[in-house]
Formats: sequence, C-alpha cells, structure tokens
Amino acid sequence: MSEGLRERKKRETRLRISDTATGLFLTRGFDNVTVAEVARAADVSVNTVFNYFSTKEDLLFDRQDEIVGLLGEIVRRREPGEGAAEAVRRDFLDALDTGAWRYGLHEGSDAFARMVGSSPALVARLREMNELRQAALARTLADEADADPDDLTPGLVAGQICATLHTLMTYGARRMLAGESMTAITPDLRGQAEHAFRLLESGVGGYCVRQGEPPGQRE
Amino acid sequence: MSEGLRERKKRETRLRISDTATGLFLTRGFDNVTVAEVARAADVSVNTVFNYFSTKEDLLFDRQDEIVGLLGEIVRRREPGEGAAEAVRRDFLDALDTGAWRYGLHEGSDAFARMVGSSPALVARLREMNELRQAALARTLADEADADPDDLTPGLVAGQICATLHTLMTYGARRMLAGESMTAITPDLRGQAEHAFRLLESGVGGYCVRQGEPPGQRE
Repeated sequence: MSEGLRERKKRETRLRISDTATGLFLTRGFDNVTVAEVARAADVSVNTVFNYFSTKEDLLFDRQDEIVGLLGEIVRRREPGEGAAEAVRRDFLDALDTGAWRYGLHEGSDAFARMVGSSPALVARLREMNELRQAALARTLADEADADPDDLTPGLVAGQICATLHTLMTYGARRMLAGESMTAITPDLRGQAEHAFRLLESGVGGYCVRQGEPPGQRE
Repeated sequence: MSEGLRERKKRETRLRISDTATGLFLTRGFDNVTVAEVARAADVSVNTVFNYFSTKEDLLFDRQDEIVGLLGEIVRRREPGEGAAEAVRRDFLDALDTGAWRYGLHEGSDAFARMVGSSPALVARLREMNELRQAALARTLADEADADPDDLTPGLVAGQICATLHTLMTYGARRMLAGESMTAITPDLRGQAEHAFRLLESGVGGYCVRQGEPPGQRE
C-alpha cells in the first residue's frame, strides 16, 4: 500500500523540523539554540515541534533507532561462512570506502563531532546511544547463537566489537577535529581498521609479553 | 623518613571525613546528604571539608587515583612470560578469590552499587573514572611495548581489556543487586571470568559463523 497524503505530509514536516534544527545547531551550537527558534525557522508552532520530538536532543538524533539497531542488523544479515566480527568489519570498511555516514566518519562529520563535544547533554546522549547499541547487538548475538540465558558470551563479544569500533571512531574523529579531511585520513584509517579487526578476531593474548622465564618454569 | 605528627593528623582527618561521608551516603543516599551534614557528623567545618575534597563526589571516590591507575600498575608488574591480558586475568581472579575491593566485587559492594546507580552525578563520575582508567592503561601499554606514536594497538588492547572487565563487573553487580551474596556468586563468576579472558586472549573471530558456503566459493 502506498503512503497516504496525510502520512507523507507528516513525514515531510518531521524531516523539515529535524533538518532545520540540525542546521541551526551546527551553525550556532546546540546549547545556544532554543526550541522556539527551531519552531520559528521551520515555520511551525512549538507545540508541533514537541508533537514530533519529545526532547531537544531528539531533534538532532533523529536517526537514533537506525544507529542503535545498526550492528544487530549487520549480524543478522551476515553471509554464509561469515562470523559476527567479520560481518561488522566488512560493513565498517564498506562505509569507509563509500563515505557513508553510519559510523560518523564521513566528510563533514567533524562539525557534528565538534557540536556534540561542546554540549554535556549531547555527550551524555551519545554515550547512552552507544550503550543501547551494544545491548541490542548482544541480544542479536544471543538470538543468532541460540545462547543459553546464563551464557555471558553474547555480551562479551558485543563489548569487544563495540570497543574496537569506538577506538577506531575516536581515532578518526580526533584527526578530523585536528583539521584533516576524510580523503586524507581514509587510507591510513582503513589500514588501522584491518589491524584492529585482526586483533579482535584473533585475540590480544600475545600482546606485551614480558621477556624471561615464567616463574613456574624456573628451577 | 617517617611521617610527622602534622602529616599523620592531616591523613587521619581526611580519612575520617571520607569515611563519615561514605557512611552517610550509603545509609541515606548520595543526593540526600549535604556537605554541611558531612562536616557536622565528622566534627569539622564545611571549609575544612573543602580543603581536603574539591567536590562532594570526591568524598566518595577517595581512592579514585588508585582505581584509575590499577590496570596500568598490574601490567607494569606482570611476570616474565606473561602478557598484558594474562596479568589482568591473574589479578582479577586473585581479587575474586581474596574478596578484595578493587573490581567492586566484594561482600557489601551491592550497597555501593545501589547508591551510585541512584545518582546521575555519581554514574557520570564512575563513567569518567572508567575512561581515565582505560586511557591510563593505554599509555602504560604504549610505554611497555615501546609502541610507535601512530600505532593504535595500545588503545585497542586497552579497550578490549576494559570491555571484558566491564562485562564481568556488570554481571556480578547485577546478581548482587538481585540479592545474591558474593559467596554464592563467586564460583560461577570465576568460571565466567576464565571464559571471558579466553575469548579476549584468543579472539572472537569464530563466533556466530553462519552455516553454508561463503558466496565467493560458490560455483
């Protein structure tokens, strides 16, 4: 069934409000823009804004559900012969190669990162989204592996995958915030990502081993 | 050189204020106790409290430096033949076996977890401490491995180790908050920890592989 006129108008209004808000936040800073100003710029009433978005943060994180669900979705769609970590690696490298927005590493995401970093409310919200995403991934892994309820493995694997992504995303964001373009960063970031996923997949057990005989094996 | 009388008195006053505050926070909730009440109960002036502690949160997290530095310290003291992750595993299991407080998994830590969980300011502070601890571990790993400045490995390994610990600590805390004693939880938690560190050390690459022929190998 195709979308009715009423649904289409609602969807367009929602998008206009969110786009207008994001533009204002990016140019003037999240904390310096009021919801009343967003309403005025989008040519709607404040009540209309709140009909579509429960909080000011929601105006910016309009795609929260998509972001939170991303990793679980990737694992559910993994190919035959592919493990969970490998599927995420493939998607991450693909996003880098195509300049997709889904890991926050695309041309222009430095402005977004700068705006989020300058507002404690947004930093808190982003953290919460990261936690929700990790929990959603753990649930998907438990489903897909048909894990026992007291098996900690899905939670552990989700934690390991998210830690790897977080380190890579922080690294990319830091270089962009220092003024480099994504074009300049991408080749190195791609190499770092391949290395990071190798560590994730094959383990960190051999890292930083101290030279010498283990005490148990001394005579 | 032994501690002078003046230093000893200062250390004792500091400890008395912090212990008094922790007791009040635990019995009445962090947000329901004022610094003035802490001062009164510890028999000092409000100014004295602030001479020793810059914020109300500091009264509770008196051992912050020790907690933040813990993992780096463990890696620096690892034994010959031992890698970073193995050293942390040994220390974690040791803390479980001896009922030590350093991972927040000891008899009575449920009251502490309950108090922290009920105050957004404390949750934020605990998150910040976790981030500082991971960053400190990454710096130690970079030092110990004599890593190149653009080598991401120390940061990645620190992220992996901390994610493993976080999953284990959350699991233990959840069971304690549900009313189980540490004595009841420890045997299972020990098994979960051994499994978790095995995953960390040998990698998650084989987890959740989809059945079937990889697409590239089909004819």
